[in-house]
Amino acid sequence: MHHVEHTVTVAAPVDVVWDVLLDVRGHERILGSVHAAEVLASSGTHQLVRLTVEVNTGVVHTWVTRRDIDADARVIAFRQVEDLAPLVRHMGGEWRAFPLGADRTQLVLTQDYAAREPVDGLVAGRFTPEATEQMLHGVTERNGTGDLAGVRAEAERRVSGAG
Amino acid sequence: MHHVEHTVTVAAPVDVVWDVLLDVRGHERILGSVHAAEVLASSGTHQLVRLTVEVNTGVVHTWVTRRDIDADARVIAFRQVEDLAPLVRHMGGEWRAFPLGADRTQLVLTQDYAAREPVDGLVAGRFTPEATEQMLHGVTERNGTGDLAGVRAEAERRVSGAG
Repeated sequence: MHHVEHTVTVAAPVDVVWDVLLDVRGHERILGSVHAAEVLASSGTHQLVRLTVEVNTGVVHTWVTRRDIDADARVIAFRQVEDLAPLVRHMGGEWRAFPLGADRTQLVLTQDYAAREPVDGLVAGRFTPEATEQMLHGVTERNGTGDLAGVRAEAERRVSGAG
Repeated sequence: MHHVEHTVTVAAPVDVVWDVLLDVRGHERILGSVHAAEVLASSGTHQLVRLTVEVNTGVVHTWVTRRDIDADARVIAFRQVEDLAPLVRHMGGEWRAFPLGADRTQLVLTQDYAAREPVDGLVAGRFTPEATEQMLHGVTERNGTGDLAGVRAEAERRVSGAG
């Protein structure tokens, strides 16, 4: 299991950032990697979402993610629960939003992941374990920076009143 | 000017992490890159520190850093103010500690830096601008992960009561 953390400072109040994080339907618009986000079920404390994501240039996968919402802590814990991506045995993490004064937010994305076990030396019938690890590392690095940048841009757009 | 941010989750309460951040004298013991830290002046809201740092394998420099302390926000803003490192026009950033529940902390290190202008095509008489950027990028990446890991290890050691 690997664990990585990425962060960015957002020039918007924590409540604005939190609203962007909660609005998972809108992620298909603001996150470049998310082609579609369909909410299958939701409550005040969870969302079940079918996501269609471009995990690599031209490579699109669909899976179901569960998001558990802790509004007091402003933390959303997510993990793939159905139709996992072909290379992963586990993919989860947390979105965390911390107030940094009244008008800025420290936005954090953590990601935990593990590759599938190889069968006859290959993962998903195509990739060596080393190539699989390298691809998952690349995906989480790109998500870590790209998704943070997408949420940041949307939150700052809402504050500026533009668009 | 470049801006980078790194973060790590620490399994210790925010007050413990904050004490480790404030104890700059102790950084020569807990941060592998810091060979010496001499406090030249201090108050409740600032510290002036002469640091001797291994910026690259075998390359040691000494400069004076000012640290401005915001105990309410748990933010320490730092910047080199005297005897700047040979390659830098500006080097500064912030340590930030956010409570993540009662017994964990989101620790963040931001770094802002700019290289010196080249003279006759060379920075510090030796390096091309591209090589200089690459070296500063490497230093800030190493500091970003290494210094966070050092503070984290010390805070978790204090909580566990070990050592």
